[in-house]
Amino acid sequence: MSLLTSVNARTSQVDDFAVLFEGALHDFLHSRHDHAPELATELRGMVLAGGKRIRPAFAWWGWRAAGGADRADAVVRALVALELLQCCALVHDDVMDRSPTRRGRPSVHELYAARHRRERWAGSARQYGDSAAVLVGDLALAWADDALVTAGLPSDALRRAWEPWQAMRTEMIVGQHLDLLAVARRDESLEHAVRVAALKTAAYTVERPLHLGAALAGARPEVVECLRAFGHDIGVAFQLRDDLIGVFGDTSVTGKPVGEDLREGKRTPLMAMALSRAQDRPAALRLLRRCLDGGPVSDRTVDDVCALLVELGAVAAVEEHIELLATSGLAALERAVIEDEARRVLVRLAGRAVTRTT
Amino acid sequence: MSLLTSVNARTSQVDDFAVLFEGALHDFLHSRHDHAPELATELRGMVLAGGKRIRPAFAWWGWRAAGGADRADAVVRALVALELLQCCALVHDDVMDRSPTRRGRPSVHELYAARHRRERWAGSARQYGDSAAVLVGDLALAWADDALVTAGLPSDALRRAWEPWQAMRTEMIVGQHLDLLAVARRDESLEHAVRVAALKTAAYTVERPLHLGAALAGARPEVVECLRAFGHDIGVAFQLRDDLIGVFGDTSVTGKPVGEDLREGKRTPLMAMALSRAQDRPAALRLLRRCLDGGPVSDRTVDDVCALLVELGAVAAVEEHIELLATSGLAALERAVIEDEARRVLVRLAGRAVTRTT
Repeated sequence: MSLLTSVNARTSQVDDFAVLFEGALHDFLHSRHDHAPELATELRGMVLAGGKRIRPAFAWWGWRAAGGADRADAVVRALVALELLQCCALVHDDVMDRSPTRRGRPSVHELYAARHRRERWAGSARQYGDSAAVLVGDLALAWADDALVTAGLPSDALRRAWEPWQAMRTEMIVGQHLDLLAVARRDESLEHAVRVAALKTAAYTVERPLHLGAALAGARPEVVECLRAFGHDIGVAFQLRDDLIGVFGDTSVTGKPVGEDLREGKRTPLMAMALSRAQDRPAALRLLRRCLDGGPVSDRTVDDVCALLVELGAVAAVEEHIELLATSGLAALERAVIEDEARRVLVRLAGRAVTRTT
Repeated sequence: MSLLTSVNARTSQVDDFAVLFEGALHDFLHSRHDHAPELATELRGMVLAGGKRIRPAFAWWGWRAAGGADRADAVVRALVALELLQCCALVHDDVMDRSPTRRGRPSVHELYAARHRRERWAGSARQYGDSAAVLVGDLALAWADDALVTAGLPSDALRRAWEPWQAMRTEMIVGQHLDLLAVARRDESLEHAVRVAALKTAAYTVERPLHLGAALAGARPEVVECLRAFGHDIGVAFQLRDDLIGVFGDTSVTGKPVGEDLREGKRTPLMAMALSRAQDRPAALRLLRRCLDGGPVSDRTVDDVCALLVELGAVAAVEEHIELLATSGLAALERAVIEDEARRVLVRLAGRAVTRTT
């Protein structure tokens, strides 16, 4: 089955999980609200403002793939942890990147800073906004673990799940730091960009959620290995797609400004490929460096760099790489001895992840 | 037994636990180092630079008090979580307060910012330092939960411990936010100052650690109740002592600048009591407000405010309050049906907590 036809296949199983999951997410946040009203309101606003729930979906179908069937309600509740962890990552990331928006609304630190200004409070609005957002992220991280531990999982399932869960949290945090370091050190190598993509997104978004789901189901090591290989390749492809969307994405769909990654000077594999292709073209190099050097980037520069990325063949190279990763990922999935329905859904989720536009 | 004589009593049991605990803390951090080398180095530096390990000690003796005896090795490993949580709190707090020092060394965000400047990296050193420190705190928070879950506790003990553990994390974060809000809203009321002290420190430093230890041991509800009542009172007294040290503490012992709390404009019960006593004295009020208004505070002002706090009777009132809390806390402990040795040690720990000078 090709990826593109699979995207259009029947989606009811995916939707069934999506409905269960949103219910569990609401229930958790609702039950916790009174413990931290000032912070939980913005946390809930952020979590429920959108998000593709891609991590819980991969974890759920990893669990199903490995034969998971009993205590489905507890598994759904446990996967709320993934969305809360993602909330921590986004809220803290936005503070670090000074991003003004997220999911089409002001980012959490901006909401708190705006409140500080509105109420004419004492001190710096920016400092209060940043501090409150750090605390919202901390709360999301602490509550993520609470969601997993208090979901009502059997003790052995919880213990098995903790291995991928602890790896995922550490990898996410280390990946964020490598991202900061790359900008600080002006590291423009393809190697570094791919390493960050593998840690920060591939592992965290696809591979580890699948691993977590498989661990919850008590999967055999061969099954875990195939699912992780599939998840790694689809995860890197997901990140490469994300990089294309970050440059060329439609702002009305993404909720982010046009060319945001260019304005932020992100060191992506896309930019690394463009730089290596532009080595003999001083004007093209200067244009790319204008984005990477951290200064303000005009609309005109964004347009020019977009055209240049296409002209240099960097976009085509990234698209080709996505296609190769999708093929090798699906081959790994093919080798796995797993449930048929889950296999079909995982193929579809992989297709969505690598062909999406938001 | 009075508090002062108890401080000088035999300390070997306390020291035995302290040695075991430092070993467990080193082992955990050592085993984790390679997973996040760039962040773990500063995390380890911070954790091992000092700290009184007061939370693990109260948890350990709460466990012993409630009859805990088996799997002591797993309990010691589990309590590493408390010190890592404290590390998260301190590192994020220092970013929010922009504190330059901690435990006699530069704070974590300062260490990263200094490295950024030394290496002549791109972008803002302050922004890099703050961001890296946010990530170190996140790592400490995630690893705190890992330490508890992977300590090798029996499943039922882990489940029992999770209730106080999740409450403690949420209360700590909410307490930090109330602290920010009090400064922003210029809230000078005694009521608010006491509420922050109760949440941010009393619960988090003494009551919940005792609760956690008792839960690990499977204590009966009456025992938990008495230990928590003891912990609440001793915890508030601990915070009141902390406030006195923050103003009058000897910088060579505390590792913090003289009068730091005055320079930071902290809203403490001490300041609230001083303000209410100074209502009819405009000059005294102006002097106190100079600290609370967030502007720069000179050495001369620090000296004058110190003298004023004594003259107004605020220091004596806080000392009296500490004495009352210590008495009521010890009375609650007296009612508890617990192990004798643990009771003696808890009395001693309480004495240290409320009479200490650092």
